[in-house]
Parts: sequence; structure tokens; C-alpha cells
Amino acid sequence: MVAEASERPGLAGAGPLAPVARQRLRLQPVGGGGVRIDGGFWRRYQVLNRETTIPHGMRMLEETGSLENLRIAAGMASGEYAMPLFRDSDVYKVLEAIGWERAHGRDTAQDRFLASTVQLLARAQRPDGYLNSYVEVVEGGKRFGNPAMGHELYCAGHLFQAAIADLRTGGEEAGLFAVAARFADMLTGPGLPAEFVPGHPEIETALTEFYRTTGEARYLDLAADLLARRGRSTLSFGVPGHLYEPSYFLDDVPVEDAREIRGHAVRALYLLSGAMDLYLEAGRPGLLRSAVAQWDDMVSGKTYLTGGTGSRHKREAFGDPFELPPDRAYCETCAAIASIMWSWRMLLATGEARFADLMERTLYNGFLAGLGLDGKSFFYVNPLHARAGGGRQGWYYCACCPPNVMRLLASLDHYIATRTEAGVQIHQFVSGRLTAELPGAGKIALEMITSYPDEGTIWLRMRQATGEAELAVRVPGWATAVSATLNGRTLTAEPDADGYLRVTRTWAAGDELVVQIPLRARTIYPSSDLDAVRSCVAYERGPFVYCFEGIDVPGTGALRGVSVQPGVEPTELPSAYVADRHVIGLSVPGRIATPPPAGWPYLDHPPGEGGGSRDGQARDTELLAIPYFAWANRGPSDMRVWIPEHPSREG
Amino acid sequence: MVAEASERPGLAGAGPLAPVARQRLRLQPVGGGGVRIDGGFWRRYQVLNRETTIPHGMRMLEETGSLENLRIAAGMASGEYAMPLFRDSDVYKVLEAIGWERAHGRDTAQDRFLASTVQLLARAQRPDGYLNSYVEVVEGGKRFGNPAMGHELYCAGHLFQAAIADLRTGGEEAGLFAVAARFADMLTGPGLPAEFVPGHPEIETALTEFYRTTGEARYLDLAADLLARRGRSTLSFGVPGHLYEPSYFLDDVPVEDAREIRGHAVRALYLLSGAMDLYLEAGRPGLLRSAVAQWDDMVSGKTYLTGGTGSRHKREAFGDPFELPPDRAYCETCAAIASIMWSWRMLLATGEARFADLMERTLYNGFLAGLGLDGKSFFYVNPLHARAGGGRQGWYYCACCPPNVMRLLASLDHYIATRTEAGVQIHQFVSGRLTAELPGAGKIALEMITSYPDEGTIWLRMRQATGEAELAVRVPGWATAVSATLNGRTLTAEPDADGYLRVTRTWAAGDELVVQIPLRARTIYPSSDLDAVRSCVAYERGPFVYCFEGIDVPGTGALRGVSVQPGVEPTELPSAYVADRHVIGLSVPGRIATPPPAGWPYLDHPPGEGGGSRDGQARDTELLAIPYFAWANRGPSDMRVWIPEHPSREG
Repeated sequence: MVAEASERPGLAGAGPLAPVARQRLRLQPVGGGGVRIDGGFWRRYQVLNRETTIPHGMRMLEETGSLENLRIAAGMASGEYAMPLFRDSDVYKVLEAIGWERAHGRDTAQDRFLASTVQLLARAQRPDGYLNSYVEVVEGGKRFGNPAMGHELYCAGHLFQAAIADLRTGGEEAGLFAVAARFADMLTGPGLPAEFVPGHPEIETALTEFYRTTGEARYLDLAADLLARRGRSTLSFGVPGHLYEPSYFLDDVPVEDAREIRGHAVRALYLLSGAMDLYLEAGRPGLLRSAVAQWDDMVSGKTYLTGGTGSRHKREAFGDPFELPPDRAYCETCAAIASIMWSWRMLLATGEARFADLMERTLYNGFLAGLGLDGKSFFYVNPLHARAGGGRQGWYYCACCPPNVMRLLASLDHYIATRTEAGVQIHQFVSGRLTAELPGAGKIALEMITSYPDEGTIWLRMRQATGEAELAVRVPGWATAVSATLNGRTLTAEPDADGYLRVTRTWAAGDELVVQIPLRARTIYPSSDLDAVRSCVAYERGPFVYCFEGIDVPGTGALRGVSVQPGVEPTELPSAYVADRHVIGLSVPGRIATPPPAGWPYLDHPPGEGGGSRDGQARDTELLAIPYFAWANRGPSDMRVWIPEHPSREG
Repeated sequence: MVAEASERPGLAGAGPLAPVARQRLRLQPVGGGGVRIDGGFWRRYQVLNRETTIPHGMRMLEETGSLENLRIAAGMASGEYAMPLFRDSDVYKVLEAIGWERAHGRDTAQDRFLASTVQLLARAQRPDGYLNSYVEVVEGGKRFGNPAMGHELYCAGHLFQAAIADLRTGGEEAGLFAVAARFADMLTGPGLPAEFVPGHPEIETALTEFYRTTGEARYLDLAADLLARRGRSTLSFGVPGHLYEPSYFLDDVPVEDAREIRGHAVRALYLLSGAMDLYLEAGRPGLLRSAVAQWDDMVSGKTYLTGGTGSRHKREAFGDPFELPPDRAYCETCAAIASIMWSWRMLLATGEARFADLMERTLYNGFLAGLGLDGKSFFYVNPLHARAGGGRQGWYYCACCPPNVMRLLASLDHYIATRTEAGVQIHQFVSGRLTAELPGAGKIALEMITSYPDEGTIWLRMRQATGEAELAVRVPGWATAVSATLNGRTLTAEPDADGYLRVTRTWAAGDELVVQIPLRARTIYPSSDLDAVRSCVAYERGPFVYCFEGIDVPGTGALRGVSVQPGVEPTELPSAYVADRHVIGLSVPGRIATPPPAGWPYLDHPPGEGGGSRDGQARDTELLAIPYFAWANRGPSDMRVWIPEHPSREG
């Protein structure tokens, strides 16, 4: 079951997922710091993250009491504990972001913050390795008393992931890994009750990573144990009538037996990430079967156009199939991040582009909308329709999302490409460099230059190659008429069954593969199963889902009564701006109807018809659509991803 | 401020609302047991209630521990307290139902249950009059410690209403009123903290009724005080991120200043009932202004077609304007009941038929769906769209709804008609008798005979009349081509501005006014503001809203892929049955499309178009619609009130 420990020294330079067993990986992370984003769309976000978002997070941890909680636990301060009880995890996620960000260059302030925080953690840590400020301060040290809602192992998992980031980016001198290892060792000992089931998954993937990093099988064994304990309905919380059911905790069905995605979206997606980690390292095909079935279930009627998931505010849950209300969409930013984490594992296991497609969709839309253009305002909930909504917040009481954004942006380089024995695969399009050591083909180094997602030309230039190798490029599922040239000669550009355009040859330095992905705007229609957006359309261009903001509607500044002309394709506006940020806008022929007067909104005639019509006069206009990620950066406004088509009875 | 106490002996025979101040009443309850439903649709429900529902409730109070809680509080038993903490109110509501039901004839088992329960309550009552089993058993007698969620005055209010029902129906010998009066006296003394704000309204209307019954102004003063304390944002509950905000408790804005209906639906509607009671007795036009504005706000975009309210499961709350998802509709049965209570008060204050219209809509749909045809299965939540839903329950942990159904059915006679100085007004159409003593016109007695809502003929026959009097009949807002005859002679049947057809004359015994309300089936269209049901239609006939159940769809037994033909009127099926219950069904030309295969449900072409169509073949069929109230009586099934029209692009 346990993979070759000899692989482990190579984990320096690895990203947030570094499988050591190879046999179940169709694709492997490039490893060794092998991809660096060095320009373009995502580099700009990484710089914003480094210069603004992470420093903002460091400040917020201080201002909102998360660090003070640890000081109280360490006996260095007194005062009231700042809830909620999982605040330690916010600290750990900022530290993890600092860890991954180190790979882009050291930052004195971030190093200093790490060092002082590690000192604090070491002082708050109990002699046996246990560490949790809430349990120490509020529960008088009584551990593991609240499996369902206590979040102790959730916090521990985030500590471990932060420590691993330090280890893989050369930041271990601060000592975080030592703190984490003491805690991890405590957990693999008798201190953790044998039947304890962690209510909020996260520890499973973290322990597997800890195993990968250390080579110690007991961490993997504990991860396997924790997964195996799930599904006996031991977890519930609250009182009848207000109960958090076992399904909320994914504790209703053994992990391998589950086929439907359900429960609290973030818990479900973290658990599935952990299950895939266990599958990759230790086998058990049932885990993959369950994950594939749940992923199919998710994308067939429980995923929003933005890639967001979680249809219900109540219990932050996946809804029923096809229950996808745009206005009450929950779509927590953390769920988008967890979905990306999970799909990455599915991609490595299967090599199928559909997983990278969903990652791209989620990255550019459901995830990115969670961060304001200023880099220090956030959304926890990401609806697809807002009525005068849009109040981003600088931080949250339950602040899981902001530092989660930080750690994903800082580690994004690692989700761009993979390698096999004999080639490299490009999954996401960025400007950057890729270096990989291929067992079958020696060292390969290339650069990727692109203006994606503004333009669809992906320019791949070989810088070093020593043997025959495959270069594979994902063809997005939405793309049509993709073309490619190799050193100027046109290639047949058909993607294979997995969704990749593959070129295998003996490469030479200077070889250029240029892939052209036309980014024409697309009109998107909901299937007849999607009740909540019937007779509406949405627009996409490249990886972006678009939206309309009321603020852009001439005359009214609102979206009430606004519809679009059926069957007319949008026109691109290449030089649109949202709060000084350049975007490619879309112009759509639309109509603004004077809203009906207040009153009973159920009519005995179709709206717009009949002498007794309550719908007012309409005027035609051009409507501006902007990429969804850029909404809510210009003050409160109506917003719609799905916009009604004119009722066809009106012509 | 305080009205004539001389009126009070007349309260014997009165119903659940018996205002004593007259000057702000455009209409007055008939009083004196003046209306008896003695046949037809609602009489059948009253018999079901008496013979099945109330006895079932008595059993459930025993089986689920509500009575045992009181025994523990009385020191007669030991054991664990059965939560939730407001269980006493379930007992009181069953007692209230027994009280009102007494007016239809005594029932030995119900009398015995009342007597033994009153003994129990008297033993559980503290010497100073305070009575609450939860506070005694669980809180060690510490009173008023949890204004937001403690429900102490909510329970007290239900006790008072039960006691009043006994007093008005000759059941006071059991002694419930004495128990209630001791508690009410305790509350008007120093025992209730001066700044206490009751988190769940109910006490306000109950205290006003207590004042009406006893003539003691201190009860009215306390009701006024409690209302005046509201709106200072002192009530909230929980932790940030999971907070029940002051708006949830209607404590964000002073009652008179509120214009938007918001917060927890049942709390809001009980509070508005109490506010109207205070307005009717003590004046303060600001209370009426606020109530009218909130009522208008409710019906203009926060009320479902069924009359149900509460768009959100989360916080059981009113949603934003036009946020009316059919599948996630909360529409608590208690909210329907509270809406009827409130609209009755609005009707008495204004004389406008629109309030009686909403009462009718809510009674026949949003309320009645909450009770199974067997009389002992219930819905707490009443959606307008279910995917394989429909599990009625015999009781609920939070069992507020079932006994609320009982008390409304038992007292329904009192919501049928009103009187003025010089006439009577018929608001709801039932078979029954009406007797009223009119100050201006002497005694009037008439009978109403109708097969409504199956047929629309309302036959009013004068049995006694001594002077000139007005006889007014509500013309439902949905009705067209209403006609009337007086002793066989056609009358002009135009409703006046208030919505009533009025005939003023010197009546003689034997005079017959016959009103014909055509009940043709109607197709209902949502206004363009209702995003969640765009391009769908619903059907109504008379007061009934209709629905489709999957179980009735030939071949598939499901509603997925089902649509109706646009612009075609339904045909009546006069002899349809739902689980042996006769209803008038509707037959609608429809289409069943093979649902699209599983997969990403967002298409680059309209569903049903394009070579790459994922929508399957369609076949035409006739679809059966049944009255909404009768759904979920034949096992789990899909259900839809709003059904898609065929996409017109398909022709």
C-alpha cells in the first residue's frame, strides 16, 4: 500500500499536491517548482495577492483577534476569546499563502510575520503537541468534545498544509513544520479517540500530504482511518426541527458507497479531495468510482454556470438536482476553491480535460468573483442575480474565504501543467515558464506566452528538449474551430478523446507550437431542467461568464424590466473598463420596459398583452455585459448573469 | 382610549376577535354565535377536525411529551423535559380548538381532556400565577432570561386565547380562564421586567382580547407597552455570521414606522395582528398606516399564488421583493393562518374586499394544503414545486402548525360574515345560517346555501328581517360576469369600490338574493418581475389554485420534461377524485419531452433546437391538474403549481 519513500527528497519545490505513488496517476504534477506564471492575467493577481491581499490578511488577523486568541492560549495575554471557534485556521491559511508566495521571492514583512506567529504557536502548543486556542481558552483544555462542530482537526489540517508549504519553499527555518509535526504525532498516538469522526473534513488531505512529505506511513494510515469511520451517521448537531443531519457532514453513507453529491458544499468537496488523495496513494478503486459518480452528479445539475456550488443558504448545502436559483445561490468562495482542489486530483487520476475545464470555469468566475479588484474586499457568497446587492466586505466574522483566496492565488502556478513519463500537458493558459524532468525524455523546458483570456493565441516555445516528447494542450470544451501551427506549418488540430491536442516529436530548442482558440462571444441557454432561469440566456467569451450590472443600464441604473433580444449575438467591446480595470465587454441589443406598477403580480393575461396590461412601455437599447468576476466593484447594483429574453409573444 | 365596558357581557358567543371599541370598525364581527357553517366544503372539514384532527392532537400531546412536561413542572412526574421549549403552546392551541369546537356541540372526550389538562396546568402554575413548564423544569424557575428565543409570552398568549375560547363558548367551568387570569395578572404586575420585549409576538393580540373580555384596561395597556417597546434593536440571537438580526424579530424599526414586511413570517404576521388589535381598540392611526403599507408590500411581491408567505427556509423569512422560488418556498402553514388573522383585522378596519379575497385564497390553498385529506397528517412547509416530495408527517418536533390548523377550522364560522349598524356583509361563501342584531335595523336572520367552491351559485334566503337593511356580498377579485337576482328579478350586479355587491331594501322573510359567480378555469401568468416562474403558467378555478402531480402523468409518473400548450384554456373534469375525495379537475393539453441526458445543463443552442440538441423527442398528452390543497395524499410525487409553457420557438 505504501509508496516508495525514496521519492521524497524531491518534494522540495513541489506544490500543494505531491503524490508519491505513481501507479494511479495518469498525470503527475510537474514538481520541483517547474511552472512559474510570469506575466498576464494571473500574474497580475499574484502580485496583487502578494502586495495587498496577504498583507491585508496579516493585519486582519491582528485586528479581529485571531492572533490574540493564540496569545491568550499561550498565557501571554488575557481577555475574551474572539469567536468563531475555528479562527486558528484563518491564521494557518494566511501562513500557507505566505509559504507558497515565498516561491515568487522572499518578502521581509511576510517572513517576519511568519516567524513571530510560529513563536506564538509554539508557546500556545501543549507539551504533547496538541494545539487549538479555542479548546484551551474556552473549553478548559477539554479536547475532542464536539466532533460535529468543533473543527479541531479542520484547524489541524490547515496547520499541516501551512507547514508543508514552508517545507517545500525553503521556509522551514521559522519552525512551523516542527510545530505541525508535534501535533501530527500527537494525533497518530492514543490522544485522539479511536472513534472520533471530524465533522469538517480537511485533515484527510493534509495528513496524506504529511505522509508524502515525511514518508511516515502512520499519517496516511490515520487519514485512511478517518475516512473509513465516516458514513455511520454518528455526526449530527442541534435539535430536531433544527437539526444538522448526518448528510450535512457526509456521514450518512460510507465514502466509497456515495454516488450523489450532497450536504455542506465545502465539507463535501474537501472530503472528496481527501478521498482522492487516499485513492492516489493507497488505491481502493471504490474511492475513485464514488468520486467520479459524485463529480458527474455535481456537474449535471448542481453546479452554476460560474462553476460555483451550493444552492442553499440553509446549511450551505448542495440542493436537489436542478435546484439552481440564481438569486439565492450560495456559491461560497471556499466551495469554488475546494472544487478546484478536487478537480485537480480528478485530472491527475484520469487525464480527462473535463476536469481542467471545470477548474478553468471556476477559477475565472465562481472563485475570482470572491475577490474585489482592490485585492482587499471579498465575497463569501457569490450569487448569479442580485437585487441592489454587492456589498463586499473587508473581512468576515467567519473568515474562511479571504485567506483561502490567498493560498490558492499564491500556489496557482502548480495547477497549470502536468507531466507524464514522456511529455508535458498544458491545462491552463498563462504566460510563464515550464521545466520538467521526464524519465522517458529527459529535461524539457518551454515558455508559454499568451494574452489569454483577452485573446486566444497560446504561443509555446521550446527552450530545451533532449528526446522525443509529447506536448499536449487542453482544448476547452467550449472551444470551436481551434487551429494550430508547428513552426509555422498548420497542424490538424483535433483534440483526442481526453480533450487534448497532442504533438509528439523530437523537439528542438526554438520549436514553436502556436494554438489559436477563437474566443468569440457565446450565447448560453439553460437546459429545460433548469427551472429557475427558464427563458433566460447568459453570455460567455473564452473562460469568462458575463453579467449585467444595473449601474450600466442607461436611464434607469437598474435591471428591473430589462431583457435582451432573442437570437442576436453580442458584439465585443474590446476597450471596456470596470473601475479602471480593462476588460473585454459585450454589447447586447436589449430592451428596457417600464416595470409594472405595484400590486398583485399574478395576471390573467400574458405580461405585455391585453387591454389591462400592467407592463409599461418598452424602449430598445444596447446593454453592456462585463465579466462576472468584475461585478460589485462600483458600489451596490442589481446584477444578472441570466437575463430574460424578450417574451417571444411580444415579437 | 378605553371603550365602553358595557359592551362586554355580549362577548359570550363571540369568536376569536371581538373588538369592543366601535369607532374604528367599518365592519363588526357578527358576534353572539351569529354564523354557523352547517354544510358543504368547510363543514366537512370542521367535522373532520372534530372527529379526527383534534382527537389526534390530544393523543400526540400525550405521546410526544407535551403533557408530561407539564406533569414534571407540577411535580407529578420526573424525567427529561421534551424540547422544544415552547411545547406548552401546542397544548394551549389544542385547548383553544376544543373551546371553539364546543360551539358545534359538546364532546365528552374533549371536555374530559380539557378538564384534566386544566387541573394539570393549575398544579404546574406557580403561586403568583406564572406558568411555563420549560422555565420551571429546565431553567430552574429563572424567568424572562431569553427574550429573543424564550417564547414565554408567546406561550402565555396562546393560554389566554384558549381561555377566552372557553369563556365565549360556555366552557369556563373547567377553570382554564381562572388559570389564565392569574397569569395575566402576574404579567401586568411588577413580575415582568419593564424593558422585556417578547421575541415571538402573540401576546399582543391575546392581551387585547383579554382586555376585551374582562374590561380591565391594564391588559390593553400592557399590550400597548409591549408594542411600543419594539423597534429598538434590543433583540438578536446567536453569533455573528449566524445571527438572528433584530429584523428577524421585527425589532429593527418601531411598529408604526415600518413600511416593508420582513423578518420571520409568522412573527411578523402575529405582530401585525396585534398591532391592528391595538389600533382597533385604542386608535393610533400610525398603526393602521404601517399595516396597510406592509400588507401592500406583502401582496405586491412577497406572497405566493397560494396566499402562502415566507420565501426562505433560512430564518423562515420573507424574502426580497419578487423573490418567490416555487421549490424553496417556505410558506409555513402557521404563516397562512397568521395571514388570515391579520387580513380579518384589516377587513374589519377598512371594509375592503381585497382583504377577504386574500383570506379566501389563503384558506383554500396555502392553509388547507397543510392538512392531509386523512385529517391527521400535516405539512409544515408548503412549496409550489416539489421534486419527488410530499412526505406529510403525523406530528412535528416543532408542532406549531397542526394545532393551529385545529383552532382555525374550529373557529372558521366567525370569519364568514360581518355586520354594520344597518346591514350584513357576506365575505366567504359557505352553507350556513347567519343571525345578527342590527342597531339600525333590528334582528336579521338568513340562510346561505351553496355548493361553492364546486359551483358558483350563492343562494341567500331571508328568514327574518324587521326593517331596511343592507345585504352585501363580496365579489371575488378574480370573478367576471357575476350576476344576481332578487326574488327572481335580475339585478345590476356591479360591485362597488370596496368590492361588494350591495342590496339595500326593506327585507321580508322569504326574500331570496341569488348571486352567480362563474367559476370558469383561469390561466394565470406571472408578472415579468417574477423571475423564478418565468414562461410558466398556473391555473385557477374559483378560489382554488391548481397543481400537477407527477403521479397523474401518463407513462412517466413524473413531471420532468412536462409542459403545457400555450394559449389553450383547460377543460373542466367535474368528476375527478384524489384518494376518494371528489374534486373538480382540469384537463390541460400538454407535452411530455424525454428529458435530456445527464450532463452539463448549459447549452450553446436553445433547448430543442440544433443538431446537437440534448432534449429528446416529445409527445402530446392531456394533463390532469387537481386543486393544490389535495396534493401529497397519494404518496411521494413531483408537484408543480407553475408549469412551463412549451418553448414558443418549438411552435
